[in-house]
Amino acid sequence: MRNICLTLSYDGSDFSGWQTQPGFRTVQETLETAVARLGGSAIRANASGRTDAGVHAVGQVVNFYTDLTIPIDKLAKAINAYLPPDVVVRSAEDVPQSFDANRDAKCKLYRYVIHDGAVPDVFMRRHCCHTRRRLDVTAMARASASLLGRHDFHSFETEWPNRMSSVRTIMHLEVRRMDDLIWLDVEADGFLYNMVRAIAGTLMNVGRGYWPESEVASILRAEDRRRAGPTAPAQGLFLMRVTYER
Amino acid sequence: MRNICLTLSYDGSDFSGWQTQPGFRTVQETLETAVARLGGSAIRANASGRTDAGVHAVGQVVNFYTDLTIPIDKLAKAINAYLPPDVVVRSAEDVPQSFDANRDAKCKLYRYVIHDGAVPDVFMRRHCCHTRRRLDVTAMARASASLLGRHDFHSFETEWPNRMSSVRTIMHLEVRRMDDLIWLDVEADGFLYNMVRAIAGTLMNVGRGYWPESEVASILRAEDRRRAGPTAPAQGLFLMRVTYER
Repeated sequence: MRNICLTLSYDGSDFSGWQTQPGFRTVQETLETAVARLGGSAIRANASGRTDAGVHAVGQVVNFYTDLTIPIDKLAKAINAYLPPDVVVRSAEDVPQSFDANRDAKCKLYRYVIHDGAVPDVFMRRHCCHTRRRLDVTAMARASASLLGRHDFHSFETEWPNRMSSVRTIMHLEVRRMDDLIWLDVEADGFLYNMVRAIAGTLMNVGRGYWPESEVASILRAEDRRRAGPTAPAQGLFLMRVTYER
Repeated sequence: MRNICLTLSYDGSDFSGWQTQPGFRTVQETLETAVARLGGSAIRANASGRTDAGVHAVGQVVNFYTDLTIPIDKLAKAINAYLPPDVVVRSAEDVPQSFDANRDAKCKLYRYVIHDGAVPDVFMRRHCCHTRRRLDVTAMARASASLLGRHDFHSFETEWPNRMSSVRTIMHLEVRRMDDLIWLDVEADGFLYNMVRAIAGTLMNVGRGYWPESEVASILRAEDRRRAGPTAPAQGLFLMRVTYER
């Protein structure tokens, strides 16, 4: 059996997330169905991680074992022929048998996109979170600095404890404005459930002037989800990139 | 009665164009219904021009007469409260009784957006025309130069003759590439039916290398629609701006 690794992009708007759930339209099932139409045995697609309903991916990474013999340089195009317009395979490669897109992921980069123009942008409405109040990005960037590095992120985790440990390392965190768009980039060795969206909701409260910049460090120390801001809407979140040591 | 002028933005994907047609979802009817919910007599929205099914607007201009007394600085927000997420009023102003958004338009700027990346962009798929073959933008720009100025655009008009005259003046025409996106901007004193989309389809044939650059001038001279390229898909077309002498 070959082990194939795909980089996928999807618009999460009309998906109930990555993971197959009977009765719902999911990316996993959509991909598995498309590959099945090429022939070969049924596959099980293994993603770097699940994305929730409404969350988008620019660079989700997936692997699966298959007996398909289609040459690798033809495979992305072949799968794309059977995918709906809101999912696309950007690249495909043959990888060693041992490669596991989930287990071997070293870090992931998520981007949260906020639009704070006076009127919503009809073209971006499914791909950002709109807020009418202008945000103070300088304050958000300064406040976010306390999250950098290795911390217990209990305060930014929905329904914790979900995992053995909520200690994670954020190696990169950046808040940038381009006109009416704000990008919050967070790269970490792993993410807790709703972690980026809780960070976004918290930083938005700082940007709105509800909270002082110092509040974020204090929320982090509290290890209490009730202290952080609301979980920002799914439609603003993009899985941008997954990094592997290869 | 006040005469109100609105600048509207809409995502045309889920609309059967601007103009009211029984049984179809149109921008005109959606706007008129939203304004009706504010009270006052029924209005009739008069746009700078119709846009076809699937065509978008960044800056459509509309006027209507109303007995509403809502202050002008509150009006856009009030209408937006009743509009669906794919239409938004960007601004509203009181204009002289004589102003007519259609008759008084001096020129309009349309943009046609083409994406020629190797794989379609899932996030832009409703707002551009994707073509897998890389286009030669330099050739398209050179070929387009022959369309500048005052000409009979019969060759770029669907089902002509629709009008008394198909002579129009293109005062600005530009083809630009930004990474995998190509913007074709056309500003003219008026447009024939499907004119920008016929120009886009024609220039794409030049960009693909099917036709030499000189073909565009020859098509223009022929005054024969069968000579030009296909009408490019509606989803790539945006009404950007309407200019008035005021």
